Amino acid sequence: MTITVIPVGVKGDVKPGMSLKAIISKALRDSGVGLQEGDILVVAQKIVSKAEGRVVDLATVKPSLKALRLAKKLQKDARLIELILQESKEIVLVKNGIIITETRHGFICANSGVDQSNLEDDSSAVLLPVDPDRSAKMLRDSFGIAIIITDTFGRPFREGQANVAVGVAGIRPIKSYIGKKDMFGRRLHVTEIAVADEIASAAELAMGKSGGIPIALVRGYAYEKGAKASSRTLVRKKKNDLFRHSKR
Amino acid sequence: MTITVIPVGVKGDVKPGMSLKAIISKALRDSGVGLQEGDILVVAQKIVSKAEGRVVDLATVKPSLKALRLAKKLQKDARLIELILQESKEIVLVKNGIIITETRHGFICANSGVDQSNLEDDSSAVLLPVDPDRSAKMLRDSFGIAIIITDTFGRPFREGQANVAVGVAGIRPIKSYIGKKDMFGRRLHVTEIAVADEIASAAELAMGKSGGIPIALVRGYAYEKGAKASSRTLVRKKKNDLFRHSKR
Repeated sequence: MTITVIPVGVKGDVKPGMSLKAIISKALRDSGVGLQEGDILVVAQKIVSKAEGRVVDLATVKPSLKALRLAKKLQKDARLIELILQESKEIVLVKNGIIITETRHGFICANSGVDQSNLEDDSSAVLLPVDPDRSAKMLRDSFGIAIIITDTFGRPFREGQANVAVGVAGIRPIKSYIGKKDMFGRRLHVTEIAVADEIASAAELAMGKSGGIPIALVRGYAYEKGAKASSRTLVRKKKNDLFRHSKR
Repeated sequence: MTITVIPVGVKGDVKPGMSLKAIISKALRDSGVGLQEGDILVVAQKIVSKAEGRVVDLATVKPSLKALRLAKKLQKDARLIELILQESKEIVLVKNGIIITETRHGFICANSGVDQSNLEDDSSAVLLPVDPDRSAKMLRDSFGIAIIITDTFGRPFREGQANVAVGVAGIRPIKSYIGKKDMFGRRLHVTEIAVADEIASAAELAMGKSGGIPIALVRGYAYEKGAKASSRTLVRKKKNDLFRHSKR
């Protein structure tokens, strides 16, 4: 079946305390897009974080000694480094001026997802939502369709970044082919597809990165429903990861 | 603009020596899908490889001593291991029964991309195209639109596999925002998006993995044209990769 990815623009800036439900409802109305059963609402992390008040005024951040030391080494703002450390469970590596951490959610990404783009000025920074699955679930309760909250991550081995799912609700993020057969009745080699990440990537194509289109509606994809679905399913456990080592 | 991803099924098996142009033309006709300017034709590696005769009868493979040793360690077919070694430039790691290599093209993936799914029987294996960019270019010459050839790769840190681009023609695989501004006129933090991989992922959603739909048409995405575009652009150089080490 044909899949469509519909961009949904948001006018104006999202401020802490605003209702995400109201923002998205208005954006859908303004775009003339009506929700249909089976639609997947894809929302960029940035507006979720902003609405949830995950914007930090850097003037209020007091860097730890560890942050000061790392900031000096990397020649970065120590207050930003402090936030990155606070948002992390573990520093995975520091190399070439880049900090890769495991966030408190378990995601492996640059800067613990702390970001300064699409903010009015650089005196503040945006953190990932505290619990993006919970944020997704609230949106699901509001709109009654599957929700994916996305962020843009770099990845090893390949240049360029791509959107992945950091929060999901109502959709199983991984489609399993385990036990399924190919067209010749043989067991499939490829067994698990990270469809939530693929949907996040598809949505990015409609969103772009310059801001203004933080929402996309994905229609026509026959996803597997999951009342208890979680983005944690997409996170590989440290002990199972081939490329993670505590010492570097 | 709304993006659509149209699945295009192929009836019957693709055999070595068949014309890929004829197969795709027929598949488009059978699906009632006409090509439009600006469309991106996404083709699964498997049918490209099959048509190009990259199917190897395992009975013809004589395993090297190295392959025999590795096969014993991993309890796998030594002839398959031999093919994986032949297709590789370097073994990146062998762990938990998995072989991750750098392919001759530079891709980091499991088993050098050598695969046995969607084959009539397990006495043979399919290799990646010798030069997927060249394969893409030939299709571009035939159909006059942008081409992406995809394969399904695993990735560090995240569970589940996702489709990526292994061959491109006529489309710049990375969209650069370097020097561009966000909605507040600030320099963007996210600078390069691997749109070819995102398109490959979007196409996978329409293709699925059970076989029968190895083609998807992506319509409505305003890609950047690139007469000399190459999938190599997506390959991070070993020296620039944070997670690659020759010794493990």
